[in-house]
Amino acid sequence: MKGLSINLATVRQQWGLREAVEACAKHGITAVAPWRDQVAKQGLSESARIIKDNGMQVTGLCRGGMFPAATREGLQAAIDDNLRAIDEAVTLGADCLVLVVGGLPGSSKDITEARGMVADGIAAILPHARANNMPLAIEPLHPMYAADRACVNTLGQALDICEGLGEGVGVAIDVYHVWWDPELFKQIERAGKLGRILAHHICDWLVPTRDLLLDRGMMGDGVIDLKPIRAAIEAAGFNGPQEVEIFSAENWWKKDGNEVLTTCIERFRTVC
Amino acid sequence: MKGLSINLATVRQQWGLREAVEACAKHGITAVAPWRDQVAKQGLSESARIIKDNGMQVTGLCRGGMFPAATREGLQAAIDDNLRAIDEAVTLGADCLVLVVGGLPGSSKDITEARGMVADGIAAILPHARANNMPLAIEPLHPMYAADRACVNTLGQALDICEGLGEGVGVAIDVYHVWWDPELFKQIERAGKLGRILAHHICDWLVPTRDLLLDRGMMGDGVIDLKPIRAAIEAAGFNGPQEVEIFSAENWWKKDGNEVLTTCIERFRTVC
Repeated sequence: MKGLSINLATVRQQWGLREAVEACAKHGITAVAPWRDQVAKQGLSESARIIKDNGMQVTGLCRGGMFPAATREGLQAAIDDNLRAIDEAVTLGADCLVLVVGGLPGSSKDITEARGMVADGIAAILPHARANNMPLAIEPLHPMYAADRACVNTLGQALDICEGLGEGVGVAIDVYHVWWDPELFKQIERAGKLGRILAHHICDWLVPTRDLLLDRGMMGDGVIDLKPIRAAIEAAGFNGPQEVEIFSAENWWKKDGNEVLTTCIERFRTVC
Repeated sequence: MKGLSINLATVRQQWGLREAVEACAKHGITAVAPWRDQVAKQGLSESARIIKDNGMQVTGLCRGGMFPAATREGLQAAIDDNLRAIDEAVTLGADCLVLVVGGLPGSSKDITEARGMVADGIAAILPHARANNMPLAIEPLHPMYAADRACVNTLGQALDICEGLGEGVGVAIDVYHVWWDPELFKQIERAGKLGRILAHHICDWLVPTRDLLLDRGMMGDGVIDLKPIRAAIEAAGFNGPQEVEIFSAENWWKKDGNEVLTTCIERFRTVC
């Protein structure tokens, strides 16, 4: 199962970090991406040991970000938390720290200002990231999350921030967030030329989508044409694992974890 | 209430076309935008008479579009239906026919192909629209509708289609669909230079949004900073009414129609 990574949010309702990593190993999967709450629950050093003992690549730690804040104290708290996230990513040997950058703070309606806070926040943590050789991966999120989760909503916008900040920051390309973008292939090519692709997340967009956050589909069950996107990302020079990340409150989170992994493997072989 | 238009979908659960138009007139509102199903239910010529008798401007007829189809017959049926929609818009004296262009046809995952079908479909009806002096208004829809409602998802993309097709086609700018776009103000300016702005729809983006389609907010209840968008659209040369279009199954559609109109007027005065 080389080339496949399981973001552990995909089985977060079924398993803790240890059970999830051991199950992945049993299925021949060689890469995972944990969330910080999963790591915290297992304990950081214990999580690192479990991952190492099972020979797992860590394709990313989810997540830093959430920079915009209504107060100076809030901004500083976000920066401090991101510095800790960098340290955790280093301890886990992650390929990158994934940044979900945050939306509008408090009662603000000023998305331009929020976007500025994001760039400033990343700039503030970048020296620590560079000093620790931990790449920061900006994940542009679907525009339907612009208000409450991430005000960076296209790959082009994320790359503009990367270019503004210099080395040490790149992008996580999640098909769920970017599949609709008329500029997708152009921006993937640009990301490749800039050497900024740090992660490639997969799942599918269901029709209908019944919930804005927790109704992502398994690869092949929706409308995203995955193979051409994969081909473009590989042609752009990223050859790391494709990381399956599925939030699915009413379907996959209710199934047996092993069935979820078996399905991920089968779909990875056939439609990705 | 000059400068305010009510898209009749906003009160579609409360009133038929006649009741809605008469209620708008009673509130001093001088413009409306009906949907084709509302017109059909009232009867086309009767609808035209009601609108005329009440001195209403028609800021748009909703909607044509839905071009992509899995078969040649389906494409032709869509074109035929759009030709009828143009005639209806002419009969109603509408400022434009709003186009919701359609998503992926059948089981297709090829959004590039669907986008081509949209441009071809508009090209096919454009001569009839021009001959009848009925402007076609492409409404870019939020990317969360890319699969099932409209594969034109940004103002920039809509304007590219306009430029490709020449005179007779422009854009309807609905804040709900475009507020998140980092290129919004740049593209509004471009739309103005091209002379392509045909309509300006308003409502608000709620946090949280509980349904992808039917949870739009009243102006002022969400996160969209309406006044700067209005200012940009007016600076770009469009000075027609702002058209309130709210789909709200669990809130505004359940309220008394007069209360909805009163609230629209109050918010129009204060936050738009």
